[in-house]
Amino acid sequence: MEKVDLAEKLARIPDHWNPRVVAELNGQQVKLVKLLGPFTWHHHEAEDELFLVVRGRLRLELLDRAVELDPGQLFVVPRGVEHRPVADEEVHVLLFEPAGTVNTGNVREARTRDALERI
Amino acid sequence: MEKVDLAEKLARIPDHWNPRVVAELNGQQVKLVKLLGPFTWHHHEAEDELFLVVRGRLRLELLDRAVELDPGQLFVVPRGVEHRPVADEEVHVLLFEPAGTVNTGNVREARTRDALERI
Repeated sequence: MEKVDLAEKLARIPDHWNPRVVAELNGQQVKLVKLLGPFTWHHHEAEDELFLVVRGRLRLELLDRAVELDPGQLFVVPRGVEHRPVADEEVHVLLFEPAGTVNTGNVREARTRDALERI
Repeated sequence: MEKVDLAEKLARIPDHWNPRVVAELNGQQVKLVKLLGPFTWHHHEAEDELFLVVRGRLRLELLDRAVELDPGQLFVVPRGVEHRPVADEEVHVLLFEPAGTVNTGNVREARTRDALERI
């Protein structure tokens, strides 16, 4: 039961595409991640995924359109929906999703993260 | 599947202590609420509750201490833990908690909200 300062936690993240867990509740986790460049197309079989932009601009590409998110804007990608986050410049994002959600969903690649650090 | 702009949604909230639902995922809801003054001491039997301050300063009183939250800071009140939010000046808060969580928890009073508007 300690408060979490998002900026302070983000300052401790040195890399990209490597989510950290900063809070957990009701079987869900709050994660922080820095993004840069295009990610991998993927979907999550059983998890809806919330993206809330804290800094920068995130483009969430879906199969039929793209959603641009600025700070203070959020979007929920429903389970099963193919998506690809793209950050033309560095973006800081808060994720909210079930504990155990894997960042690359149905795809396994070099940036897949199974065990996440808690900060 | 539409993006949610927190400031735009908050601008549509005219009252205090009346949470609105702005997103839902994995059985959880994202709510926005404006607070002013002291709330009611209460707890939630089965729900952990996340408070993320968007604007202003929130004091979360617990039985043995108080936590002050500024914008960009969050706190999780675990289920069963008695708490009282206090806003000396107006505070804008994002809540994340299971769908159906009632704002006054185990207490019923004039500000209890069972059916929440979606905006």
